[in-house]
Amino acid sequence: MEFMTGVNKKETLEIGDLLTGSYEGKSVKVNGAVHTIRDMGEVAFIVLRKREGLLQCVYEEGKTQFDLKDLKEAATIEVEGTVKPEERAPHGFEIRLDKIKVLSEPAAPMPLAISKWKLNTSLEANLNNRAIALRNIRERAKFRIQEGVVRGFRDFLYSQGFTEIHTPKIGAKSAEGGANLFRLEYFHRPAVLQQSPQFYKQMMVGVFDRVFETAPVFRAEKHNTKRHLNEYTSLDFEMGYIDGFEDIMAMETGFLQYMIALLKKDYAEELRLLGVTLPNVDKIPTVRFDEAKEKVAEKYHRQIRNPYDLEPEEEALIGQYFKEEYDADFVFVTHYPSKKRPFYAMDDPADPTYTLSFDLLYQGLEITTGGQRIHDYNKLMEKIEKRGMESEGMEQYLSVFKHGMPPHGGLGIGLERLTMKLVGEDNVRETTLFPRDLSRLEP
Amino acid sequence: MEFMTGVNKKETLEIGDLLTGSYEGKSVKVNGAVHTIRDMGEVAFIVLRKREGLLQCVYEEGKTQFDLKDLKEAATIEVEGTVKPEERAPHGFEIRLDKIKVLSEPAAPMPLAISKWKLNTSLEANLNNRAIALRNIRERAKFRIQEGVVRGFRDFLYSQGFTEIHTPKIGAKSAEGGANLFRLEYFHRPAVLQQSPQFYKQMMVGVFDRVFETAPVFRAEKHNTKRHLNEYTSLDFEMGYIDGFEDIMAMETGFLQYMIALLKKDYAEELRLLGVTLPNVDKIPTVRFDEAKEKVAEKYHRQIRNPYDLEPEEEALIGQYFKEEYDADFVFVTHYPSKKRPFYAMDDPADPTYTLSFDLLYQGLEITTGGQRIHDYNKLMEKIEKRGMESEGMEQYLSVFKHGMPPHGGLGIGLERLTMKLVGEDNVRETTLFPRDLSRLEP
Repeated sequence: MEFMTGVNKKETLEIGDLLTGSYEGKSVKVNGAVHTIRDMGEVAFIVLRKREGLLQCVYEEGKTQFDLKDLKEAATIEVEGTVKPEERAPHGFEIRLDKIKVLSEPAAPMPLAISKWKLNTSLEANLNNRAIALRNIRERAKFRIQEGVVRGFRDFLYSQGFTEIHTPKIGAKSAEGGANLFRLEYFHRPAVLQQSPQFYKQMMVGVFDRVFETAPVFRAEKHNTKRHLNEYTSLDFEMGYIDGFEDIMAMETGFLQYMIALLKKDYAEELRLLGVTLPNVDKIPTVRFDEAKEKVAEKYHRQIRNPYDLEPEEEALIGQYFKEEYDADFVFVTHYPSKKRPFYAMDDPADPTYTLSFDLLYQGLEITTGGQRIHDYNKLMEKIEKRGMESEGMEQYLSVFKHGMPPHGGLGIGLERLTMKLVGEDNVRETTLFPRDLSRLEP
Repeated sequence: MEFMTGVNKKETLEIGDLLTGSYEGKSVKVNGAVHTIRDMGEVAFIVLRKREGLLQCVYEEGKTQFDLKDLKEAATIEVEGTVKPEERAPHGFEIRLDKIKVLSEPAAPMPLAISKWKLNTSLEANLNNRAIALRNIRERAKFRIQEGVVRGFRDFLYSQGFTEIHTPKIGAKSAEGGANLFRLEYFHRPAVLQQSPQFYKQMMVGVFDRVFETAPVFRAEKHNTKRHLNEYTSLDFEMGYIDGFEDIMAMETGFLQYMIALLKKDYAEELRLLGVTLPNVDKIPTVRFDEAKEKVAEKYHRQIRNPYDLEPEEEALIGQYFKEEYDADFVFVTHYPSKKRPFYAMDDPADPTYTLSFDLLYQGLEITTGGQRIHDYNKLMEKIEKRGMESEGMEQYLSVFKHGMPPHGGLGIGLERLTMKLVGEDNVRETTLFPRDLSRLEP
C-alpha cells in the first residue's frame, strides 16, 4: 500500500529559493515557460517566465547539451545549470545552462507579443485573447495586487472577530428587487441571481455578530461604461452592536490601512512592475452629501441641478476637491438622501430626508456603499409600507428582526473598481480576469 | 473637517478580552443578545450570547439598576458590572450586574428553542427558520469550522505559491457541458451558470503556474439525496509543472494536514462544543480504482456489476475497508476509467482505458475529484474528436494549449461535504448556511 504524506520538496527551485544566495556557484534545476529567446550567436539568452518573475538563463554553444534550434518561445522547459551573479539580469543572477529538457511545446505562434514590457494592443484584442494576454508580466501583476486586496480584507476582518459566510447566489427574491435582476428557471420555478448578499449578511449578524463574504454578485444593468460590470466580486461585511454608522467607516479605514501595508510587504515586486504609488490612508475626510454638493458647486462654479442625487461628474469633482484641499485620495460622503437608498437604510433621526449612510469615493469614483440598517421590526415594517412595497417573499428576512437584532450596519466594496484605482487603470475591465458586460459573455 | 483614522477601540469588551484575567474584580461593559433568563427570585442568571460564546451575568435585586420584568429573551443589551471568578460559569467567570441598557427588543416570541443544547427540531423546520436556528451555539459552531476549512485552504495554498483568482459564473459555455446546466438569458443571448471553474483555472495555469478559487458552482442535477446540492462552494486549485498526478494528491494531503492543525489551534472551542474528534491525516492510503473494487468485492462478498463505475454503496464499502484495514478515514482512489472522466482528463499511457486521476473519499464519501489534464494541443484535439464533441465555443480554452501549457492538474473539493464529515453530520444541508436543492429555493 502506498501512502500520501504531504507535499514533497521538489528538486526544481523557485526564484525565492535562488534569492537566498546560498545557491551561488552551484548547479540547480528550474522550470518555466520560455518567455523570450535572444540569440547572440555563440550565446543565447533564454528568459523563463515563472510565477515569481522572469529568470535569465544563458545558453552557450558547445557547453549546453541541447540544440537551440529545437527550442521554441512558449515552450515549457526544465533546465539544469549553474547560478552566477549578474547585475544586469532581473534578480541580480543568471543560470548558465548545462541541460534543457522540453516539457511541452506550443502548436502555433503567439497572437500577441506578450513578452513586451507594455502589451501594445487594444483592450478589445486583449480581452479577446485574455488567457494569453495575461501572460504579460505587467498584465498579470494587476491580479496579484487584486489578490492582495482580497487577502487583506479577509485577514483584517478575521482579526476583528468577523466570521466568513457563503450565501446562495440563486434565490427566489433579491434584496433590492427591481429590474436589474438576471432571471432563470430553477426546476420549473422562477428564480433570480443575487445582486448582493444584503439580506443574508444581515440575517447572519443575528448569529455571528460580525460577518463577511467575498463572492460574485450579478447586476443585469444596461450600463455600458468604463466602471460597470454585470458580474463582479463584492467584498461585503456587516457588523452588529455598532454605536453609529461611523463604526462602519472606521472599520473600512482600518481595512484600507491593513491592506495597503500588506501590499507594501508582500506585493512589492508587483507594485514596482506597475509603477504604483499607493495612496495615503492614515486619515480619510468625511463630508455630508449636501455639503459636498455645495462645496463643489461653489469651487467649480457648477449649478446644483438635482439636490437628491450625485452625478458621476459631481463625484469626480468631489474627488478633485478633496485632493486639492486636503491631498486626500479617499473621501467618505455621508448622509445620502433617503429616497435614493433602499428601504432597509436607517433614516437620520435628526432629519429623515437623509440616511445614516455613506459612499466611499476613491479619486472621485464610488467604490463602496454602506450604512446603518433599520434593526427594529416595527420600524422596518413601517418603512416597507410607506414605500408601498410587498413584504411577500421576505418573511425569512423579516423574521430575524421580529426575533431580535442588534443595531448594525455594513458595506459592500467593488473589488475590480478598487483594484483599478490602485493600479491606475481607467477601465474596470482591465482589472477583471474575464469581464462580463452588455456585449461580452466570453471567454 | 472630520477624519476617519481607523478602528476605534470600544469600551465594551469581548470574551477574549475578559479571559486575559486582568479584569477580575473590575467594572466592565459588555454587550450581547439575551440568550436565556433564569429567574431564581432574589437573583437571576442572564446568559448573553456573544460571537465568542456564552457569558453568564448575574442580576441581583436591589443592586442591579433595572427592572427584570422589562427584560426579554432575544433582546440585545449592553451591561455594566463586576467580573467575578465562578467555576460553574461558561468561561470560569461571571459578571455581577450594576446596569442594563436595552439596545433592541424582539417583536414576537422565538419559533424555536435556540437556547437548548441540542436544537430539538426536524431538519425541515431548521431550514425553514434557518436564520433563527443558527443562533443555537452548536448550529453556528459548524459554520465556524467551515470557515476554518476555507481559511486553511487559502492560507496553505498562498504558502505554496498559488495565486487566488475570481472567474465568471455566467458564461456562454461550461466545462463539462451536458444537461446539468442552469440556463438563463443574458441580454437576449443564451447563457449558463458555471458548473465548475475548470476551463478558467486551467487557462490561468499558463499565467500564474498555480491558482486557486473558492467560489460557488451550480449544478442543475435532479438528485435528491443527502449528499447533493444544486449550488455549493467549491475549493478548486490547479497547478503546473507537475511530475505526475501524485503531486496533486500530495498537495491535497498537505492542505488537509494544515487545515486540521489550524482547526485545533484556532477553533478548539467549536470542536469542543460539537464533540468533534478530528481525523488523522498524517498519511493517506492510495488504491487503484480497479483494485479497490476487487478488495471490496472479496472482503464483503459483493459481485462487481459494473467494472467502470463506483456506486455510492461501493464507495461506502471502500471507506469501511480502509478504516478496518488501515484505520484510515481518507483514501485516494486512483486511475478512474477514461469513459467516466471528462475529455480533458489525461489517459494513462500504460493503459488508456484508465486516467491519471483520483477521487478522495472521506469515510466512504467522495469529497474531491482531481487529476492530471491533457496539456498538449494536438492530443486534446484528438480526444475531443474521438468523443465526437464540438470544439465550437471552446476556442479560448483551446488557445492556451495551442500557445504552450506546462504539464498540469488540479482538483475540486466540495466544502459542504468536507465540513459535514468533519463535524459528523450525515446530510450536507446541515453544513450549508442556506441550502439549494430540488425543492428548496428559500430562504
